[in-house]
Amino acid sequence: MSYTLHHYFRSSCSWRVRIALAWKGLPFEVVPVHLLRDEQHAATHRRLNPSEQVPVLIVDGTTALAQSLAILEYLEEVHPAPALLPSLPVQRARARQMAEVVNSGIQPLQNLQVLQSLERDFGLSADQARSFARSAISRGLVALEALLREHSGTCALGDSVSIADLCLVPQLYNARRFDVDLTAMPTAVRVERHLLGLPAFAATHPDRETVPV
Amino acid sequence: MSYTLHHYFRSSCSWRVRIALAWKGLPFEVVPVHLLRDEQHAATHRRLNPSEQVPVLIVDGTTALAQSLAILEYLEEVHPAPALLPSLPVQRARARQMAEVVNSGIQPLQNLQVLQSLERDFGLSADQARSFARSAISRGLVALEALLREHSGTCALGDSVSIADLCLVPQLYNARRFDVDLTAMPTAVRVERHLLGLPAFAATHPDRETVPV
Repeated sequence: MSYTLHHYFRSSCSWRVRIALAWKGLPFEVVPVHLLRDEQHAATHRRLNPSEQVPVLIVDGTTALAQSLAILEYLEEVHPAPALLPSLPVQRARARQMAEVVNSGIQPLQNLQVLQSLERDFGLSADQARSFARSAISRGLVALEALLREHSGTCALGDSVSIADLCLVPQLYNARRFDVDLTAMPTAVRVERHLLGLPAFAATHPDRETVPV
Repeated sequence: MSYTLHHYFRSSCSWRVRIALAWKGLPFEVVPVHLLRDEQHAATHRRLNPSEQVPVLIVDGTTALAQSLAILEYLEEVHPAPALLPSLPVQRARARQMAEVVNSGIQPLQNLQVLQSLERDFGLSADQARSFARSAISRGLVALEALLREHSGTCALGDSVSIADLCLVPQLYNARRFDVDLTAMPTAVRVERHLLGLPAFAATHPDRETVPV
């Protein structure tokens, strides 16, 4: 299997996939898609992903897969070790629930396209759009914190890295970019600190990426 | 295994889970959570799901699982036949991709809580909030239509029902509630027509639900 990841260094959904590839020790090429230059809307990218978003994972040069959680599940099925999901169905559901609290509960409400539309089409000021994003992130992280208080160990779910962690860390990175107050989420911050010490998370961090800006 | 579904008849995410339970022939009790009466924010519900949303599936009276796609994956793992995912990893990824185009790409942007916040906190009129929802639904369905043109048969992915279909049908129901113009999505509408003829979809339709309004 060969993998090429079309991504943007600061896209939180792209970072999730970079962590998964690194965690499983899978080599991959990257193709930068510069979101602030609208490269995600180019016809060449739209052919890979009609949603005009990153990440897109190209498998063996032919198959283009999009949606980060679908890609994570694919990698888990094809390369099951080291795992990113626990073995028991209820625990797997819990990891997926926590991942979705971020993936569908937070990220879509703070992504670039939505904030641009709120400003351009609905007259929000840049400050109001940031405030909209901040309140969505905060509300979602409060829910995640409650789940983490019940289920976390050193990681989001017990002491093993799961897809929940791959969503948590990039979302906290975004939270800080939007100046979200994280004092009500001490468990999330504690888990994040542990995870950022692991090579798969540290080596793929946006601040380590060398994509031209 | 016993199942109790905390749901709202018109919640599209709840409908996804009702279809899955019906598809797999699993009996379940229901507990209505009336979103327009804010019952999702009650302390009793928040203990089941700190995200204060429906659906929540209670397993054996003790374990509360939230996030509809996490619940669908759980049901698929515990009750694999009849299946809601194909067998090949790339095809499974494609079904999940299409499901996520709806789950994270559309639904979060048109859900009640977000539209209420846009009106209450950011000064949008009710018409503007509906317009925001409409444009998010339209943009997402255009992307889904492109995937369907490439991958659909009688169903979203070939001729077998998958989680993609469980997301497609409730989202089209919502699209009509928001007066989205569906003329650019003929494939989605064709697939929907086929699916609504299947008992698992028809019997769980919101219009068939008897929840008090």
